[in-house]
Amino acid sequence: MSTPWAHRFAQRTKAVKSSTIRELLKLTQRPEVISFAGGLPAPEVFPVERFEDACHRVLGAKGGMALQYSASEGYTPLREYLAQRMARYGIIAGVDNVLITSGSQQALDLIGKLLINPGDRILVEAPTYLGALQAFNVYGAEYVSVPIDHDGLRTDQLDQALRSGPKFMYILPNFQNPGGVTLCEPRRHELVLLADKYGIPIIEDDPYGQLRYEGEHLPPLLVLDRENLRRDDGKLGNVLYLSTFSKTLAPGIRLGWIVAPPDVISKLVQLKQGADLHSSTFDQMVAYEVVHEGFLDEHVKKIRAVYRERRDVMLAALAEYFPPEVTWTHPEGGLFLWVALPEGMDMQHLFQAALRENVAFVPGDCFYPGGDEGSRHMRLNFSHSNPQQIREGIRRLGLAVARELAAHQTGVLVGVER
Amino acid sequence: MSTPWAHRFAQRTKAVKSSTIRELLKLTQRPEVISFAGGLPAPEVFPVERFEDACHRVLGAKGGMALQYSASEGYTPLREYLAQRMARYGIIAGVDNVLITSGSQQALDLIGKLLINPGDRILVEAPTYLGALQAFNVYGAEYVSVPIDHDGLRTDQLDQALRSGPKFMYILPNFQNPGGVTLCEPRRHELVLLADKYGIPIIEDDPYGQLRYEGEHLPPLLVLDRENLRRDDGKLGNVLYLSTFSKTLAPGIRLGWIVAPPDVISKLVQLKQGADLHSSTFDQMVAYEVVHEGFLDEHVKKIRAVYRERRDVMLAALAEYFPPEVTWTHPEGGLFLWVALPEGMDMQHLFQAALRENVAFVPGDCFYPGGDEGSRHMRLNFSHSNPQQIREGIRRLGLAVARELAAHQTGVLVGVER
Repeated sequence: MSTPWAHRFAQRTKAVKSSTIRELLKLTQRPEVISFAGGLPAPEVFPVERFEDACHRVLGAKGGMALQYSASEGYTPLREYLAQRMARYGIIAGVDNVLITSGSQQALDLIGKLLINPGDRILVEAPTYLGALQAFNVYGAEYVSVPIDHDGLRTDQLDQALRSGPKFMYILPNFQNPGGVTLCEPRRHELVLLADKYGIPIIEDDPYGQLRYEGEHLPPLLVLDRENLRRDDGKLGNVLYLSTFSKTLAPGIRLGWIVAPPDVISKLVQLKQGADLHSSTFDQMVAYEVVHEGFLDEHVKKIRAVYRERRDVMLAALAEYFPPEVTWTHPEGGLFLWVALPEGMDMQHLFQAALRENVAFVPGDCFYPGGDEGSRHMRLNFSHSNPQQIREGIRRLGLAVARELAAHQTGVLVGVER
Repeated sequence: MSTPWAHRFAQRTKAVKSSTIRELLKLTQRPEVISFAGGLPAPEVFPVERFEDACHRVLGAKGGMALQYSASEGYTPLREYLAQRMARYGIIAGVDNVLITSGSQQALDLIGKLLINPGDRILVEAPTYLGALQAFNVYGAEYVSVPIDHDGLRTDQLDQALRSGPKFMYILPNFQNPGGVTLCEPRRHELVLLADKYGIPIIEDDPYGQLRYEGEHLPPLLVLDRENLRRDDGKLGNVLYLSTFSKTLAPGIRLGWIVAPPDVISKLVQLKQGADLHSSTFDQMVAYEVVHEGFLDEHVKKIRAVYRERRDVMLAALAEYFPPEVTWTHPEGGLFLWVALPEGMDMQHLFQAALRENVAFVPGDCFYPGGDEGSRHMRLNFSHSNPQQIREGIRRLGLAVARELAAHQTGVLVGVER
């Protein structure tokens, strides 16, 4: 008579694809593993004492407000602060253009919810951010992908891809995750012009933009769109811009934001209300208290110095320990670099071999909507491990790579799983 | 050449229904308005100092962890605490049965995302919680509704409603929002037996269960389902249970939870990962620090005393100031009572008339999936205003009601909008 829920449930729920990277990351949790797999900031740069002061001030002066329900749009002083701060990058936004989200991940979810009908094609870079694919997949997205090279999206292939009529483009112009590459300025112009020509909106995801370790800051697509197309009526144009405090302040408080025209914001606000009512009032007020007196600039400088060193240590270690057949990107900022191994390498096998050496990475196939195109790549994170761990981890990984490569080249099988 | 995003956007986004209550609530923000419209806890009962201590302890001892990314499932000690705490209500759950969500609202969104395909019918009480309708509407839900009376859901009408094959039932058994009524024990048994007979899962939403001001605690549907149907294999059965810290601790930190079988939890975790990665690590650790040493029991006692008094003041004021044709529910707990006016009253008109008297409520039609069935009801919140404000607000509202009623009965038009 009684069908257990577990069984009933299986008949009733939609298919939810289990996340490969989630399963992989579990394997990398052992303390002896040096993991380049996650995308975590270094906890030693979190401004813990400043957070403590801010909590004290917020709860002391406005405790009743900080613990109460608040507006779905976000805490107004924080939205004003963000609008002002973005002006330095040429982004002209008022408070009505800013929606606070529960991390950038929620921005992606709300955008998917608003724009994607089952079967809609989304144009993405190949490879692209896994979390965006996860967010969009739920709404039945399909994909058109355009490859990247060392200057970012291959805009020479864009015109043809746009003819297939994607609903929107999802682009990470700065220090792309996972590729580590930056879209060069001429291609930024091409991209916004083509987007306009075909009438395809761009979602510009910029979590890492402030973490630049060399070279000049490049203008956001949002700004180029307005400048190129003379959208100087004060309205935002064809680009929706996302960013976050996760990489500059702290990811644990889950605060990101969307910049969009007010009529887009008001639809997103409705969806946010249905999704979680609002982001934590307390975290928003504390974050505002932490950043609002110019602290973020000085803090970002400190983070840049720490991560620049770690990137340089990783690049030097790769040059020292990796076989010459292997190549990698030289990221000008961000958290990741992208390593290309020779054709035919089995990355799942290499992942297992590396784990036996107590070192971990993410196999590249996770970052393609199709799944398997990137099978000879690995993503390495350089922000979380300290310089000593980075050197040692790359040494171990270099050994595993060299061994796999030798086996691959000589046709001799190594390991137990193959 | 350049189509502005605003225009393009209109062609590309899905329809997002604007929320009537959202617009109404904006009108009630003037400081001179006594608002019974929201569903806000009283900020004066928030344990602000204890939060301050907890922030100090969490950041002092584990700052790096509190500000870092964390597991989508939630902070393990908090999940363990909740599993243990729920045992006192007969809910036998382990840590694997508990998912932390960004408020109960996110639980509703994730459930909608997992279960609802466009056109699926959901069985709801009429009236029901507006936020659930908002969460489910996005996924294309349609509704079958069963009325409530003073003993909650009319289970005598349930059998027929279940024959229409709803995907699941959404039920608020304790001090229902907006009705203020509680599902009596015999009907709880009937409900779980009928759910089992038709194989229709129940979503049991219990945000207010601990805020009981009189009478005995009644067993959760989750427990009755297991007991009645001898699901004593240690597995949870046909009921998925939701609750939250919003009404017992603080809503601003956005922490709720779902209790479900592990295989349901694991699918919801995947969806949560795509939705916001995880709820605020910091808020979870602070909440755990606030509650874990038995504080919640003593605090809930205090809240109960404050809200019981406010409920009693409102009931007394209604008896004193409202015309005899008007009736209302007598809630044994929770935050709301539900007022029924005579047939034919225009509630939108009454809402405007009340606002001119500087008092606000929510018109009942917001709480029906169809929209207009409840047009002669109003929802009144008694938790947020203090006793003096409650008496004065009900006096003003009574005046507006009496005037509208007189006009309605004599056919004389009052006001300017009619």
